[in-house]
Amino acid sequence: MAKRVTGPEIEKLIQLLAKVPGLGPRSARRAALHLIKKKDQLLGPLGHALGEAYDKVKICSCCGNVDTIDPCSVCTDVQRDSSVIIVVEDVSDLWALERATAMNTAYHVLGGTLSPLDGVGPDDLNIKGLIERVAKGGIREIIIAVNATVEGQTTAHYITDHLAGLDVKITRLAHGVPVGGELDYLDEGTLSAALRARTAI
Amino acid sequence: MAKRVTGPEIEKLIQLLAKVPGLGPRSARRAALHLIKKKDQLLGPLGHALGEAYDKVKICSCCGNVDTIDPCSVCTDVQRDSSVIIVVEDVSDLWALERATAMNTAYHVLGGTLSPLDGVGPDDLNIKGLIERVAKGGIREIIIAVNATVEGQTTAHYITDHLAGLDVKITRLAHGVPVGGELDYLDEGTLSAALRARTAI
Repeated sequence: MAKRVTGPEIEKLIQLLAKVPGLGPRSARRAALHLIKKKDQLLGPLGHALGEAYDKVKICSCCGNVDTIDPCSVCTDVQRDSSVIIVVEDVSDLWALERATAMNTAYHVLGGTLSPLDGVGPDDLNIKGLIERVAKGGIREIIIAVNATVEGQTTAHYITDHLAGLDVKITRLAHGVPVGGELDYLDEGTLSAALRARTAI
Repeated sequence: MAKRVTGPEIEKLIQLLAKVPGLGPRSARRAALHLIKKKDQLLGPLGHALGEAYDKVKICSCCGNVDTIDPCSVCTDVQRDSSVIIVVEDVSDLWALERATAMNTAYHVLGGTLSPLDGVGPDDLNIKGLIERVAKGGIREIIIAVNATVEGQTTAHYITDHLAGLDVKITRLAHGVPVGGELDYLDEGTLSAALRARTAI
């Protein structure tokens, strides 16, 4: 803005809100005004919640999940079958799988995928922690649930290679037609994979 | 989520973020994880900025703008021509006009529009304050810049009627083709208005 129309504290709030994924400079202004209008219902509680999260958030030293306790709620859940570990790229994938399934397994968050072009090597990911967890014993199955991208598949191969000597079954997610998906809109790779992996009705 | 996968403080943060306009339940989770990953660059500062805004934000008692001082930065700006008042529905409209123009005028925020169906009457808006400002004298022109909706136009008429006895020029924004707009996509009302208000080249 050429001329100042509001206080520097509010300008600062708008600038920071604009950095939140899903908000841009325009929607950040709208969000800031909405927060100010709902001062006691939203602005105050959200500020408090951010402060709480800042003070209490921890990365689980076992699986890499985000929680306020370490080991996290998933690792400490005695009702889970901790002999099966689902390996995911990101915490958001862990949460997505938990919403979708009732697998009741343990997880392992890699924190990304191998990407030599971006300078991400095996030491930048939580792969060593996974191998240590498996080497300790008591793990029956590793389900590799990384994204079906080139980097994801490279990472899956790397993990498979490094777990080869250990006594553990390694599986990956099935490729195929998404539920509710239309064949006409699918790429050739997915269609070929779905045909190859066809199942009896 | 059926089973707890993260701490209650983080769940609470996601719930509150989902109430921010522009974010939904899904993008709120993404935003929360992004904030946690950028703990010191974003999570901490944003929490602090919200706290600052909560403590300091004020509604200008003169014009209704949102600021950290009262009267606000616009009302106290001596370089502005305070004899011209632009009347807007919302603070966001004030900010939008300030970004777009260099009118250097004063403003008056109504805080909404007359809407009998929603139970919004003249007493729910900051119309009395506007009439008082004009009655005090020293005001040359009132530019009514409310939205071109039925409610906006009703409000404009109401204000015009109530300022009728006072010695002030009342104008409204021009209707016409938006800059960069294509005629084919415009409604009949806009096209008729643009034709009626045609100007010599």
